[in-house]
Amino acid sequence: MATKTLASWATNLEASSLPSSVKQAAVRSLYNYIGCAIGGSNHAAVTKAHDALSPFFGKATSTLYGHEGGLKADAQHAALLNGIASHVHDYDDTHLATIIHPTGPVASALLAYAEYKGGVSGPNLLCALTAGIEASCKIGLAVWPEHYDIGWHITSSTGGVGAAVAVGRLMHLSEEQMAHAIGIAAVQVVGLREMFGSDTKSFHPGRAAQSGLLAALLAEKGYTSSPQALEAKRGWANVIAGGGMPKLQKYLAELGEKWEIEANAFKPFPCGIVCHPAIDACIQLHHQMAEKGTSAEAIERVEARVHPLVIELTSKCTPKDGLEAKFSVFHGAAVGLLYGKAGPAQYADKVVQDETVIAVRDKVNATADEGLAADETYLTLYFSDGKKLEMHVEHAVGSLEVPMRDEQLTEKFVDQAALVLGENAKKASEAAWTIGEADDVAEILRSL
Amino acid sequence: MATKTLASWATNLEASSLPSSVKQAAVRSLYNYIGCAIGGSNHAAVTKAHDALSPFFGKATSTLYGHEGGLKADAQHAALLNGIASHVHDYDDTHLATIIHPTGPVASALLAYAEYKGGVSGPNLLCALTAGIEASCKIGLAVWPEHYDIGWHITSSTGGVGAAVAVGRLMHLSEEQMAHAIGIAAVQVVGLREMFGSDTKSFHPGRAAQSGLLAALLAEKGYTSSPQALEAKRGWANVIAGGGMPKLQKYLAELGEKWEIEANAFKPFPCGIVCHPAIDACIQLHHQMAEKGTSAEAIERVEARVHPLVIELTSKCTPKDGLEAKFSVFHGAAVGLLYGKAGPAQYADKVVQDETVIAVRDKVNATADEGLAADETYLTLYFSDGKKLEMHVEHAVGSLEVPMRDEQLTEKFVDQAALVLGENAKKASEAAWTIGEADDVAEILRSL
Repeated sequence: MATKTLASWATNLEASSLPSSVKQAAVRSLYNYIGCAIGGSNHAAVTKAHDALSPFFGKATSTLYGHEGGLKADAQHAALLNGIASHVHDYDDTHLATIIHPTGPVASALLAYAEYKGGVSGPNLLCALTAGIEASCKIGLAVWPEHYDIGWHITSSTGGVGAAVAVGRLMHLSEEQMAHAIGIAAVQVVGLREMFGSDTKSFHPGRAAQSGLLAALLAEKGYTSSPQALEAKRGWANVIAGGGMPKLQKYLAELGEKWEIEANAFKPFPCGIVCHPAIDACIQLHHQMAEKGTSAEAIERVEARVHPLVIELTSKCTPKDGLEAKFSVFHGAAVGLLYGKAGPAQYADKVVQDETVIAVRDKVNATADEGLAADETYLTLYFSDGKKLEMHVEHAVGSLEVPMRDEQLTEKFVDQAALVLGENAKKASEAAWTIGEADDVAEILRSL
Repeated sequence: MATKTLASWATNLEASSLPSSVKQAAVRSLYNYIGCAIGGSNHAAVTKAHDALSPFFGKATSTLYGHEGGLKADAQHAALLNGIASHVHDYDDTHLATIIHPTGPVASALLAYAEYKGGVSGPNLLCALTAGIEASCKIGLAVWPEHYDIGWHITSSTGGVGAAVAVGRLMHLSEEQMAHAIGIAAVQVVGLREMFGSDTKSFHPGRAAQSGLLAALLAEKGYTSSPQALEAKRGWANVIAGGGMPKLQKYLAELGEKWEIEANAFKPFPCGIVCHPAIDACIQLHHQMAEKGTSAEAIERVEARVHPLVIELTSKCTPKDGLEAKFSVFHGAAVGLLYGKAGPAQYADKVVQDETVIAVRDKVNATADEGLAADETYLTLYFSDGKKLEMHVEHAVGSLEVPMRDEQLTEKFVDQAALVLGENAKKASEAAWTIGEADDVAEILRSL
């Protein structure tokens, strides 16, 4: 039943019937995705993949984001390369209940196909995107946490089905074709956690996008699969949940009632999520200091009480470069205090090696407190004149309780896109915010 | 260690050091593969996939076998489509210890790449093919049988790594690059048994070929993976063997000592392997009858004692068409007795519906005998004049004990290729036998 339930729901989802909060969540997820895909587009992993595969490109119909003057590939390769770019800085969205990064695989396939196809309206694009993200997150919930614990990268192992559903919806597949598309996507299980730390991690969502697109293309031409692909004894869920008890029917029954896309969160800072509360506190304190006419140089000591995972995962005291700084709560706190920002620019190697930053960083102490929530911190600044400033962050920015505001998403987009596109980053941001209303999204995509 | 062991062995395998029995096995595997790829090339599954994907084809460098006048695609799509074709009639080879069909994924990637690249000699091609097949079968042995029991289609779930190793060997990847290629292939786990009976079953080896080729292409340009991709706690073997105890090191230690390609068997008949002993007996009896001047019409009754699986899997008494006839030991016996053959032509719908065939088929009785081996049968013909003929097949043709002779492989090739290429089938067969000695295999591949 599960495959049929999902196929039927997705086939019948209409742009006009999406609740406005869902539409808004889709716009924000898509916008955040585009910023990340542009931000990652000049990363070495993307360049290597482009070099390897460009001899095989078909007709160049679909934009590779982040290249001035416009660089294109066929839709399948665009899905792969944009998917890699969107994840390569670990700066994409997170469905916190499953830690799936849902938009990467789904949007990479969907946008590449929409531009290839032409004539796709913004509302139809958002509807298809929503269908794909719901599909990916619902089947992810059904196999969580066993599936992830075994070692699968759940973003990509569910993302192919999400991508197939999204593209399939845009194609107006019949319910039967959609079930086949789900099945063809379901047999292509991509992503092992062992790859974290290598280029292959970001290959995962890219390949999932490509696999899902391929599945929809095949199903459109009548290629058949099993109508019980997800739920059969030797189907997707049972095979990949390894002895867990997949709860497909439970979660798929909630399709259209409980929207997972509304529970999709965005990372404000390009580093391990556990140190976000401390960075958030430091940025708020930066602004308080500015109001008082004090600066970070006047700080004598910083004491942070943090969740134990912060110490376990991000306690690198003397990071040597931007990559190591992602695992240093001390660096994040220092740039937050100094600049009131912790964007990609603040994780550039030269910032990490800057003497002013290092001087503040060395004043930061962090202590584990098991009584704190994962997104909570108490942080105190002690100044040389004996004064102090305190901050309690109950929920870090970017959590579901304190989601990033649109202005913050814009800042995030522009900050990362500027490192690739320079002054054109703002124009790209403005265009990206309007995709949901476009008559033909291809025009906007070409400008990215 | 396992990933490194495999990468090191494959990188250092040389055409000149292959034992002649291994070379011969490689020639036969490759030849049988080409016959199957031609034989399957006009199947609806291949046509649908071609229709769906041709808008995305890149530069047409690599032949799609079985199309007169020559049809080509880019190497990645050729790998996919030839891979589908090679498996779609379930007539390809079988590594009996794991029931992997090893040549499909490996050769589909390797030949498509060799033709794209150009200048690849026959001996180098055989060396790379052997490396890929050994890789696929050794890692398959390591996770057998848990992996298959869980529900994975082991041909494709191991075939991607085999294809990556084969193409990587042809590319002369360094040991480090080869390890990365293995890793990138290992994260793309394709194939669920739930798909058996649908088009997606033959998609599996095609996609595995494409995934392995992609992995080698990426690794060649420096794309990185994990150097412990196969053996890590959250690497390939542990994740996909689901609680089994993968025996990677044990089997990889035997690389180059025990050659799996020598244990690769070929199906003489395009139907379920369990009924092959009975068909074999009937074909031998056909020739005995011919010598005695008797014909199958004179038979009153056929009594076959068979392994219980024959009854369980292939006891369809009144098959309606070729597809159903594949699951009918009665049809197989009838055409064997009548024509001394049970090739693809004898599984055409019109043969299955032929009155003469049906008349003989209805005289065949089969009884399960638990004392028999899976490839054994006792078969007795009772004639209307009271005489009888008996046959004991201890090991069916196509088993490791009674492998198909080269002439039988040729007959199999020509029989299936003739249904696609007509009179040119023989020319294709002759060309296919010579690939291993070619200066540039591309010339031969273009002629197929």
